[in-house]
Amino acid sequence: MSSTETVRAGSGRAGKRRTPGRAGRAHDTREAILDAAERLFAERGVGEVSNRQIGQAAGQANNFAVGYHFGTKADLVRAIVRRHTAVTEELRVRMLARIAEPGDLRAWISCLVRPATRQLDALGVPSWRARCLAQFDTVPALRRIVVEESVATPSMGRVLEGMFRLLPGLPQEVREERGDMSRLLVVHTLAERERALHAGERAGTGWEATAAGLVDALAGLWPAPVTTRPLPG
Amino acid sequence: MSSTETVRAGSGRAGKRRTPGRAGRAHDTREAILDAAERLFAERGVGEVSNRQIGQAAGQANNFAVGYHFGTKADLVRAIVRRHTAVTEELRVRMLARIAEPGDLRAWISCLVRPATRQLDALGVPSWRARCLAQFDTVPALRRIVVEESVATPSMGRVLEGMFRLLPGLPQEVREERGDMSRLLVVHTLAERERALHAGERAGTGWEATAAGLVDALAGLWPAPVTTRPLPG
Repeated sequence: MSSTETVRAGSGRAGKRRTPGRAGRAHDTREAILDAAERLFAERGVGEVSNRQIGQAAGQANNFAVGYHFGTKADLVRAIVRRHTAVTEELRVRMLARIAEPGDLRAWISCLVRPATRQLDALGVPSWRARCLAQFDTVPALRRIVVEESVATPSMGRVLEGMFRLLPGLPQEVREERGDMSRLLVVHTLAERERALHAGERAGTGWEATAAGLVDALAGLWPAPVTTRPLPG
Repeated sequence: MSSTETVRAGSGRAGKRRTPGRAGRAHDTREAILDAAERLFAERGVGEVSNRQIGQAAGQANNFAVGYHFGTKADLVRAIVRRHTAVTEELRVRMLARIAEPGDLRAWISCLVRPATRQLDALGVPSWRARCLAQFDTVPALRRIVVEESVATPSMGRVLEGMFRLLPGLPQEVREERGDMSRLLVVHTLAERERALHAGERAGTGWEATAAGLVDALAGLWPAPVTTRPLPG
């Protein structure tokens, strides 16, 4: 590694702006750090991985490289999530434009699921993204970041609006409960599928089969009758 | 700690049988180790916790205490799972005996879900069991142990038989796929609920509300229509 590639920890978190000549190299460093972080978080969980370990896995000699480029762990998590949001947003907007029958619940649910499976398909095998997002989901503060960045988006707003228009009788608390269950089911099914593909299991079926199975299941789950619940307290 | 409480690493894994006078103390030590392991696995993931750390958290001075009492990590995982299996099996057998209407899918699904939620309810707050089982579920070799010990049981066989009798048209591969999704949904919903209770969130609603929500959702998921799938390959 040449000396110009070595990041300067002394300039601190505020010093993110680089001179134009260095922009390309800084971009490569950031991408290497994001790759390493995604993999390590996926394999070991978010709480068990230090910035120093991520930096080392990304080939950074300087112990402060991750902090220098990304700031706090929350900032790093946000950068990982944002990395592919532009792609999934664009996929979802195109899928929404092709909905021919707004009364078809499955069409809306497909817009929830398939942007993610298509993106994972494009990443190839092995990927770590689905497992990394599953790890984030188990930490409430990080889950909030994922939701802010990838669920609270304009295209997702349109999807949920379209879905809920078809489920007018669903009480608000059941809507929230099924939203949580829907998220857990998708997040962990994709993580499990990614793990199986990485291990060379079930390599004959692609991500599209996973998407089809999830859409069918969620099309049953969302409109399921609500039985009487015990009152809180 | 008295010297008689100190486990003897030198006697090795084969030397598990103790003289009757020591049985009570060995039992306490084993329970302390299982408590510590459940909590540490839940908090950090199975791959990130050593036997030494578990032993220390259980107040064992001897670094080999965990291996001495439980053998390999797989053996320890099996002991954690088995710890409560007798209780959930008994609950399930009693629930099965009370099924008045074998044509009611929800009654069978309740026998899948409620033995677990009732057991978690009995453990009180905080518990770590649901999060620990969720961690096991992400490691295929450990998931197999959980399935062997708590899913491949006589009472679960009766539940699945009763359920599948009501879903005669479901192709075998979809049955397996929905079995996986059903497991992921229950395991991670219970883990998330346990985490929320531990954090003091949503304390007003009990485990029974979680069970009711899951049973409704699964009663929609299992019989959902199956759309045409892309062929493997």
